[in-house]
Amino acid sequence: LRKIVTLTTDFGMRDGFVAAMKGVILGINDSARLVDVSHEIEPGNILEAVYILEETCDSFPGGTIHVCVVDPGVGSGRRPLLVASGGQYFVGPDNGVFTHVLEAEENRTEIYHLTNGRYFGTGLSRTFHGRDIFAPVAAWLSLMEPCQAMGQLIHDPVILSRPRPVTTGEVIEGEIAHTDRFGNLITNITSVLISEVFGADSGGNITIAVGGLSIRGLSGCYQDASVGTEGAIINSFGRLEIFVSGGNAAAWLRIDRGSRVVVSLYA
Amino acid sequence: LRKIVTLTTDFGMRDGFVAAMKGVILGINDSARLVDVSHEIEPGNILEAVYILEETCDSFPGGTIHVCVVDPGVGSGRRPLLVASGGQYFVGPDNGVFTHVLEAEENRTEIYHLTNGRYFGTGLSRTFHGRDIFAPVAAWLSLMEPCQAMGQLIHDPVILSRPRPVTTGEVIEGEIAHTDRFGNLITNITSVLISEVFGADSGGNITIAVGGLSIRGLSGCYQDASVGTEGAIINSFGRLEIFVSGGNAAAWLRIDRGSRVVVSLYA
Amino acid sequence: LRKIVTLTTDFGMRDGFVAAMKGVILGINDSARLVDVSHEIEPGNILEAVYILEETCDSFPGGTIHVCVVDPGVGSGRRPLLVASGGQYFVGPDNGVFTHVLEAEENRTEIYHLTNGRYFGTGLSRTFHGRDIFAPVAAWLSLMEPCQAMGQLIHDPVILSRPRPVTTGEVIEGEIAHTDRFGNLITNITSVLISEVFGADSGGNITIAVGGLSIRGLSGCYQDASVGTEGAIINSFGRLEIFVSGGNAAAWLRIDRGSRVVVSLYA
Repeated sequence: LRKIVTLTTDFGMRDGFVAAMKGVILGINDSARLVDVSHEIEPGNILEAVYILEETCDSFPGGTIHVCVVDPGVGSGRRPLLVASGGQYFVGPDNGVFTHVLEAEENRTEIYHLTNGRYFGTGLSRTFHGRDIFAPVAAWLSLMEPCQAMGQLIHDPVILSRPRPVTTGEVIEGEIAHTDRFGNLITNITSVLISEVFGADSGGNITIAVGGLSIRGLSGCYQDASVGTEGAIINSFGRLEIFVSGGNAAAWLRIDRGSRVVVSLYA
Repeated sequence: LRKIVTLTTDFGMRDGFVAAMKGVILGINDSARLVDVSHEIEPGNILEAVYILEETCDSFPGGTIHVCVVDPGVGSGRRPLLVASGGQYFVGPDNGVFTHVLEAEENRTEIYHLTNGRYFGTGLSRTFHGRDIFAPVAAWLSLMEPCQAMGQLIHDPVILSRPRPVTTGEVIEGEIAHTDRFGNLITNITSVLISEVFGADSGGNITIAVGGLSIRGLSGCYQDASVGTEGAIINSFGRLEIFVSGGNAAAWLRIDRGSRVVVSLYA
Repeated sequence: LRKIVTLTTDFGMRDGFVAAMKGVILGINDSARLVDVSHEIEPGNILEAVYILEETCDSFPGGTIHVCVVDPGVGSGRRPLLVASGGQYFVGPDNGVFTHVLEAEENRTEIYHLTNGRYFGTGLSRTFHGRDIFAPVAAWLSLMEPCQAMGQLIHDPVILSRPRPVTTGEVIEGEIAHTDRFGNLITNITSVLISEVFGADSGGNITIAVGGLSIRGLSGCYQDASVGTEGAIINSFGRLEIFVSGGNAAAWLRIDRGSRVVVSLYA
């Protein structure tokens, strides 16, 4: 069953864009279960959408349809896509928003260029394919229409390159990939990588250097650090995260997305 | 069937006002499908609600119930209304929030003054008729209760006047009606009017003057203009829109709601 | 029946935290009706969550499950709780977020320490029990799993103390408890208390002193005060509220949460 449809956009919630998409979906399948992932993606920031969708989609059951419309190229030649991967579906523009799905290079991933106008809305605007293509396609998909009917298989989708951590001996160099609402600084360094380089249970033996600070060891929870003090932790998505206990690390430490993070053994 | 209920308010999402309305609706009809249109209407800005609802309601199927609570006169003598028009329903205060529906003067539009307290909540506060009148009325309506049972037909609803474009020979003078999240400047000039005045396919022959700028011709998509450059386009609601490719036109051009826009033939 | 699940958090809607919780819930019970109360609680501000949930939960029908995750102590020893009270259910951390329910000391309130991992998600992170504990517990609860199966009854939950108004003769001293989106200043003084101290229908005889201002009498609706003028009213939750007609009282009067409010007889 495919009744859950999630929405990720840079539309904000002040205008009626998101509601228009939902109206179209419910007009085709009034049993669809609609879930907002985020509509506060920075306008046109495709990599932010990749980050947020990557950390969210695993929490949804098989059959979920994720619609993502961060689409600065709307109306141009960029293709509309449907990606079937890992039992879930992804609908949106071919501009890299599904990079996290596509770079996994799973055998069972199928990528369709949406070409069958029968599944589009009536009238195709130049500025709002979320309403005119992606919402109706998602709705028809939720009614169990087959992917193959909707377009042609392709093998050359746009995949964006994302900064990856570099390991040199017993040093990992990564960066801040995202700042969340609490000001927590989330790196692109995973706990799996830390275990590979430093061994399992190495949390007490490592030092994390970021923005002139040096943080020794990993905390077991946010309150392990005293209030107002910075710490590092493995977060709920298995990533190394820098925080200030009871505070806002991004604001207090003046560190932002892209800052360099170095993990090494405590000397 | 009337299971979809949309909500448009100036309540924001930080307080629990919107949730209180949803709790009331689900307490009466737990099968209602609730959709947020916008809760970020500027406090008390009725014309902004008109604009947003007008651009959204056509995306919803017949039978949809739109609740709109931008209601600075709550608790005063202003009447609570139910409007049935074009197969959809509109519930809210009689202060002009449904101007876009009422000025269409459709034969089949029926306007009811909600007077039957049987469809209201228990207890009527002086400050929150969204919860006490409009939410319960919408919920009962979604259960197929007849409009006639809810109040009396009236013929003198409040209709607000909105600035309309003026055509003089081959010159259209309009204004910026709305700025969206991307900073796009949406005018009150429609593509239909442009075709009437300049002929179909006249996009290449017109000049749009706004805020000291002169934009020649219409773009086919946002990326037709080079990054950082302004352009004009017919948007997804059939209106003339000024944009900056990859940027925020409102911020960059320092143009806001109410600014004058003149369309004329390219000399 | 327990199909409605509400969510109150300090997660914001820019990240995917809220959506991850919803994905988990729908993965267990895809018939759950999800309602957002607020995700804009100030990070870590437990009393703000108490305030917002208190003013909202009564609008929901019996059987509703309220999940509240304002949880700065996540991953520490603080207990996860399930509270059954007044026919509704409350799921969240034992840090006082359910103070309004617990301080009512109702006979029929049952408090469970959630200990049965069978109702948790697979994998327990150190930073996101909203996804790993509270969402799955709420989902299983919505499937009518019995509370007793989920943990042990306890009798020592954390209850926060909140400032209460003090009455001395015919003078009530209270404070501003909350500022809403409109800038309305909501006090901790109820209409019930005003009636007890000054008699029923005493609205015209009292003076409200706040921030150097003195407001005589209660307004019947916001528009009873002339535009730009301050007034006092009993709001929709039965509390004394200070407003500026057509304006933002918090901004214009420069009064904030915690400011002293004194109600006395008009001399």
